[in-house]
Amino acid sequence: MKFQLTSQLDYEVKFPSTIIFSVCAADTHSQIIVSENLSISPDVKFDEMTSDFSGSRFIRVETGKAQTLTLKYEAVVEQQIELIPVEKIKSTQIGKLAGDIVPYLFPSRYCQSDRLGRFAVDYFGKHETQYEIVVAIASWIYENIEYLPGTTDSATSAFDSVTQRTGVCRDFAHLGIALCRAMSIPARYFTGYAHELNPPDFHACFEAYLGGRWLIFDPTRLSHLNGLVRIATGRDAADTAVASVFGRINCTSMSVNCVPAEDGYQPFSHEQLEQQAVCLEPASKKIKDN
Amino acid sequence: MKFQLTSQLDYEVKFPSTIIFSVCAADTHSQIIVSENLSISPDVKFDEMTSDFSGSRFIRVETGKAQTLTLKYEAVVEQQIELIPVEKIKSTQIGKLAGDIVPYLFPSRYCQSDRLGRFAVDYFGKHETQYEIVVAIASWIYENIEYLPGTTDSATSAFDSVTQRTGVCRDFAHLGIALCRAMSIPARYFTGYAHELNPPDFHACFEAYLGGRWLIFDPTRLSHLNGLVRIATGRDAADTAVASVFGRINCTSMSVNCVPAEDGYQPFSHEQLEQQAVCLEPASKKIKDN
Amino acid sequence: MKFQLTSQLDYEVKFPSTIIFSVCAADTHSQIIVSENLSISPDVKFDEMTSDFSGSRFIRVETGKAQTLTLKYEAVVEQQIELIPVEKIKSTQIGKLAGDIVPYLFPSRYCQSDRLGRFAVDYFGKHETQYEIVVAIASWIYENIEYLPGTTDSATSAFDSVTQRTGVCRDFAHLGIALCRAMSIPARYFTGYAHELNPPDFHACFEAYLGGRWLIFDPTRLSHLNGLVRIATGRDAADTAVASVFGRINCTSMSVNCVPAEDGYQPFSHEQLEQQAVCLEPASKKIKDN
Amino acid sequence: MKFQLTSQLDYEVKFPSTIIFSVCAADTHSQIIVSENLSISPDVKFDEMTSDFSGSRFIRVETGKAQTLTLKYEAVVEQQIELIPVEKIKSTQIGKLAGDIVPYLFPSRYCQSDRLGRFAVDYFGKHETQYEIVVAIASWIYENIEYLPGTTDSATSAFDSVTQRTGVCRDFAHLGIALCRAMSIPARYFTGYAHELNPPDFHACFEAYLGGRWLIFDPTRLSHLNGLVRIATGRDAADTAVASVFGRINCTSMSVNCVPAEDGYQPFSHEQLEQQAVCLEPASKKIKDN
Repeated sequence: MKFQLTSQLDYEVKFPSTIIFSVCAADTHSQIIVSENLSISPDVKFDEMTSDFSGSRFIRVETGKAQTLTLKYEAVVEQQIELIPVEKIKSTQIGKLAGDIVPYLFPSRYCQSDRLGRFAVDYFGKHETQYEIVVAIASWIYENIEYLPGTTDSATSAFDSVTQRTGVCRDFAHLGIALCRAMSIPARYFTGYAHELNPPDFHACFEAYLGGRWLIFDPTRLSHLNGLVRIATGRDAADTAVASVFGRINCTSMSVNCVPAEDGYQPFSHEQLEQQAVCLEPASKKIKDN
Repeated sequence: MKFQLTSQLDYEVKFPSTIIFSVCAADTHSQIIVSENLSISPDVKFDEMTSDFSGSRFIRVETGKAQTLTLKYEAVVEQQIELIPVEKIKSTQIGKLAGDIVPYLFPSRYCQSDRLGRFAVDYFGKHETQYEIVVAIASWIYENIEYLPGTTDSATSAFDSVTQRTGVCRDFAHLGIALCRAMSIPARYFTGYAHELNPPDFHACFEAYLGGRWLIFDPTRLSHLNGLVRIATGRDAADTAVASVFGRINCTSMSVNCVPAEDGYQPFSHEQLEQQAVCLEPASKKIKDN
Repeated sequence: MKFQLTSQLDYEVKFPSTIIFSVCAADTHSQIIVSENLSISPDVKFDEMTSDFSGSRFIRVETGKAQTLTLKYEAVVEQQIELIPVEKIKSTQIGKLAGDIVPYLFPSRYCQSDRLGRFAVDYFGKHETQYEIVVAIASWIYENIEYLPGTTDSATSAFDSVTQRTGVCRDFAHLGIALCRAMSIPARYFTGYAHELNPPDFHACFEAYLGGRWLIFDPTRLSHLNGLVRIATGRDAADTAVASVFGRINCTSMSVNCVPAEDGYQPFSHEQLEQQAVCLEPASKKIKDN
Repeated sequence: MKFQLTSQLDYEVKFPSTIIFSVCAADTHSQIIVSENLSISPDVKFDEMTSDFSGSRFIRVETGKAQTLTLKYEAVVEQQIELIPVEKIKSTQIGKLAGDIVPYLFPSRYCQSDRLGRFAVDYFGKHETQYEIVVAIASWIYENIEYLPGTTDSATSAFDSVTQRTGVCRDFAHLGIALCRAMSIPARYFTGYAHELNPPDFHACFEAYLGGRWLIFDPTRLSHLNGLVRIATGRDAADTAVASVFGRINCTSMSVNCVPAEDGYQPFSHEQLEQQAVCLEPASKKIKDN
């Protein structure tokens, strides 16, 4: 499926600053950039770099003496997802994880899985398969945490949310990741564009590593799992901030949009998760192979 | 310089468990394994894997029904370090960092640099070069945090230590990392063997990325910076635990040793840092080139 | 019922210190001191004082140059409790609370009821009467928190325990208090002697204010509610430490005992709470009136 | 000195609620209410109560079905303060504190003095007298914490502020209290009206107990110490919230004012603290005695 993405971020620059933006669609074997345009005005210095260990693309901007800054991004991406029948999803044995997956078992800034072990086992230990555990975690979050903008901030972590029980997509994702890791299931943070997200904004979900693949889950249920376009992947929001600022700037406005760029889009419903999981990085189906 | 390492870890196994050990010396271009022997008794299943993004070697053990477990490691490693005159150390511009260094600017489980910004600028903002900042951070920690085993635990983080002001090498390293990152200097956690560490144990230090190189600092001043052998590198202790246990085992005893395996070892003193920094991964001097 | 109490605390004094001890049985209208002996050796200066707002008796000791310190306390107390049929327990309206009860609605050092509001309503909001809520809170803690000495420390609070789910009597009591206050029910911390506590130690429970009376609950279920002798009452453990030390001393040993001093003691079982609540401060039945 | 106070609070009531307001001037031997008028509209049920252990006056309102609520308070109070020459301020010996002062040595919800001990001794341990310590604490806060509305919230505590170094009057007061208690000096929270506060609002300061008297300090330096009218006293903000809501209401607007009601007011400057301390509750000078 092809999606058309646009985003625009406007800033007031208080002080010459370096900003690392994470707004470009990731360029992977299963998500290819059909066309793309990034413009920054005024005409300041910027470059692109890619993190080796997350594949995320960073746009690094030096504001210099600019007093305002507008970043505008437009792209069409083509995405190949895989729907995997639940009965084919194997559990992951820690004893067989590849070395670059292991770190996603460990706690991170906002996902203190080391402190959630008993809670996780109490609530999710009864499920038989790892897939059932992850589905139960995502459902539990959906049912028990209220989506309530303004109740959390950039210091809020999974350990807070599990008790305070309010938050936004970022907090929902952190809690999902922390609970998966506490159950010895590798999990990572996903940021991206989401079709029909209301209100329009960047979105955060989480991916769990099951049977050799990263499967996507959205405990807010605000997106469709086949309507997501990946920007970045990380251990948590600390790795994937839309804008990491080294200096002093204020965001004055933001707009984000994501729509299908071809016909035939059928939204995947959260109920379908009982039959099928969604993988945004299908190992076997490269787009170029099609 | 060559070092001879030995370590032995004894466990009581309560329950069939998977354990991921980080005890083997890292195998890098500047630290080569001359000889090595790892034995685990009883004779259980284990394999080795390497994390792509930290280069750390993990030994993964499945205890099966074993009731006790003894891991014994012996190695001789040859290490090539570089002493860098202070005047040659350039500051690192965020605008020029490679993509795989950028994540070491971000906060992690035990290093909440996002909450230490004002503190760091108040205390260390007056220094002119990044090297001076890092030396000042390491000295401040040495002077203000008391090395006091038993006062902290595995949940203690840099945000706690900056006020509570006691801890062990792990806490000292976390605080060093968090303060560097809060000053926009990439920093990472180092675990390893340390010559003449008293009492003998595994050791933790931190590395800061300056002028395109990782430089090592030990805010406890319990080791000599040229008497360290790297085991693992990570964003903090969450990535580099000596033993990450998935199951239930108790450590019953541990012994660790590290001695020079050739003549001519001259300990590097912490005072020397005013003239020279120590790099354990000199890009230019590969051992095989010698 | 009469109880015989003994306790002995031994300290090593590192430095001339002031210590405030809370070990003497409280002297109230419903708990009278039949006989009492407090001895401190060596023969250092001490005096007794009473907190106006908690009624707790403090023994204040100046160690001077003493290098060891032994406090020995023996007492016989007579206690009048009241068993209140559940159907007679009215709910408490905030609109009718006396001014000196109101502060027990507010959060305190270890009982962050302000952060537990949603959790409390989710779990306990469905009960009809306040008594049912408090019984449900005590049962939930008993069923979901594991009594596990060594897993918590003096910085552990209710906000930690609600997720970490282990602790000792102090942690159980803090969680009970915090959840009651989060449900707008005044609650306070109780420390005392407990008959048949195993292992013998000082004990902590909590009291909830219902229908104009403080009712006692023990979420550990390690004591019998009619086998408790009050030492002190406070907002949480911060107010009622067995020993608050201003200086530097180490406790080297402690022994505590509490046995009935007359015949006819029938332990009150936790199952009885479905029919009857226990009040250790019955307003209507003063011992002197009997 | 006489002051004229006015305050008005407007609320939107979402749900029938009980609210406990702390807006009335305290009625003490040294601060008498010359005239006072409290009106609440619409005409709902309310009563007044006084906390025995803080002397604070609470107005308790039952909103019933009211959909908006306006509380309006006007008063003239006469206040007798005492300026105490620094050389006459004795230090307080814990060994001589009255029982009702002792609890102000203990940690509370927002003042975790138990975790600030080393920090406090490192920074303030060098001063000779307790008065010098408290003045140094208030000055350190003024110099190191930036007054920055919007950076903290109702969960922010002294342990956060000591590192994060921003906040409002509430945070400044909490940090002052926590540091005093960590130095074994009793300290409490003061809320009140402040002359010339800009922007106009209720204000928070702290009082330290020295030489048998409570002395007032304002680490924000936004008020004059002789231009304060006490509303309430507590262990921290948890005890003295302007409005403690049991239910659901939103504050829609607030106005606060405090002006001298007679001639001759000479603001006390913070520099004067080197010569004189300010006591708002002079034991010896009762207004009625004048």
